Amino acid sequence: MNRLSETGLIQLIRSQLPASARPIRKGIGDDAAVFAPSAGAEIVVTTDMLVEGVHFDLAYFEAEEIGHKALAVNLSDIAAMGAEPLYALTSLALPDSTPDDFVAALYRGLGELARRHRVDVIGGNLSRSPGPLVIDVTLLGESRSGFLSRDGARPGDLVAVTGVLGKASAGLAALRTHGRKALTLYPELAAAQLCPVPRLEEGRKLLGRATAGMDISDGLASDLHHLARESGVGIRLEEASLPLAPGVTLENALNGGEDYELLVTVPAPAPDLHCIGVVTGNAGVVEMRHPDGRITPLPPRGWDHFA
Amino acid sequence: MNRLSETGLIQLIRSQLPASARPIRKGIGDDAAVFAPSAGAEIVVTTDMLVEGVHFDLAYFEAEEIGHKALAVNLSDIAAMGAEPLYALTSLALPDSTPDDFVAALYRGLGELARRHRVDVIGGNLSRSPGPLVIDVTLLGESRSGFLSRDGARPGDLVAVTGVLGKASAGLAALRTHGRKALTLYPELAAAQLCPVPRLEEGRKLLGRATAGMDISDGLASDLHHLARESGVGIRLEEASLPLAPGVTLENALNGGEDYELLVTVPAPAPDLHCIGVVTGNAGVVEMRHPDGRITPLPPRGWDHFA
Repeated sequence: MNRLSETGLIQLIRSQLPASARPIRKGIGDDAAVFAPSAGAEIVVTTDMLVEGVHFDLAYFEAEEIGHKALAVNLSDIAAMGAEPLYALTSLALPDSTPDDFVAALYRGLGELARRHRVDVIGGNLSRSPGPLVIDVTLLGESRSGFLSRDGARPGDLVAVTGVLGKASAGLAALRTHGRKALTLYPELAAAQLCPVPRLEEGRKLLGRATAGMDISDGLASDLHHLARESGVGIRLEEASLPLAPGVTLENALNGGEDYELLVTVPAPAPDLHCIGVVTGNAGVVEMRHPDGRITPLPPRGWDHFA
Repeated sequence: MNRLSETGLIQLIRSQLPASARPIRKGIGDDAAVFAPSAGAEIVVTTDMLVEGVHFDLAYFEAEEIGHKALAVNLSDIAAMGAEPLYALTSLALPDSTPDDFVAALYRGLGELARRHRVDVIGGNLSRSPGPLVIDVTLLGESRSGFLSRDGARPGDLVAVTGVLGKASAGLAALRTHGRKALTLYPELAAAQLCPVPRLEEGRKLLGRATAGMDISDGLASDLHHLARESGVGIRLEEASLPLAPGVTLENALNGGEDYELLVTVPAPAPDLHCIGVVTGNAGVVEMRHPDGRITPLPPRGWDHFA
């Protein structure tokens, strides 16, 4: 391997990142980064790690897509708070076999999404990995007029999502079966898995309207349980109302995960939302009404990272 | 493996962490954490990752020590800025073989150090790892009256460090040779490797006094090059002035790394600092004067993570 030195690799990475979207007191190159928050703003911060062999597989993920997704899943968390993303830090653990141009491509993908959302990468670190490639992104944002959280749902609210469900997990199955050919066979499904779109604009618009909100990362059923638990309520889903994408099964939509749509509770329906159920007073009870009228419990069978 | 579910593991981790040192708008359990910065303060943020087999080895590191060190190396970065640590987020990638009580012990070690420095753990995430255990900590702090950085050294300043050098790398050698027996054979050296002490109080006191500062993590020689480059100056080290710990070689002190003492430049000597050299006008030139008067270049042979 003719791997660059750490200094050389940091220069290569910096060359892939967009110019600063705003003045920063101290960016990459010191012991820590420094920025001045807006007066009166609260700071919102999240971190999410992608591990090779768990969250992505190099057999069907390209470097740009890994970089994109590593930032996108964090942007989705900031979107779920109705907040504004501003600054990112990245930690990368690299196998000795990873070529330098793979690293450049990874940061090109991350940098492209950062540019689109005016996110400045202000720090991070690099390490060797004796095993999988690991990328951990920390994303900081601001909220100036409160934020969405998981604990505000009230009985009588409607349960809604911002888009169709199940595409990412159906895309994963297609990629596992067909490799990169899935991109031409099932382009929309594969794209949902490889290049998820964080719902930042939707999150901003829901702030002040929704009583509670989160993003769907583990899978709808599992995430409904999270929301119900944090809010101390129950939820009854309407199977017939679930917005399934073409080529997607009910199982994909309920337990597939990685949709990165927003799941919210609202006092009234709205044209930009798919209503999928109602909030009930049965604390902790998540159930589903089938088209034949039967109501059955909906277990949290989404993606447990240790199942 | 009877591994807890993700939810169970998060509960176990929370039980190891100290109660909040201050009010937090939103902590662990939502899509992101939220806090209100102090009026007029700047936010300081850093992230550092420890990878099993690269930064620690389970043959001689216990779980508590890994947790301690993962936070300590980040605290050291905040100390190097002269800032106040406040909030941490942790990302953990766990091999299937890691027992739950190992995870609890890791967070006990991290939590103990967090308590000591009034750091609140406000978020993070968990993942499986098909390879090494990986822990990435992001640490946020505040500075209310500026910060120390690497770029302020001026010709004529003195170069100084906050403590003796070389212990951590000598400790690593002892641990590799003797395993945990090194703790009784060379207790001070082993402790420096396993449980580094971040110099937060020293950093605070140097703010306003030092013209530049950083922590010594890669090794003195390498870090002198970083400081010289960022400040656009040269540095001449005095070999005879280097504060070597007992049982430590010159090589340990120059190139061993992981000292986590602060390296600063100051206009005048001070009783709490070891002066080890001077800042020169020869931009980028780092050299050392030997006891016999010879002056030779000091190459940056510290720990390059990709060497």
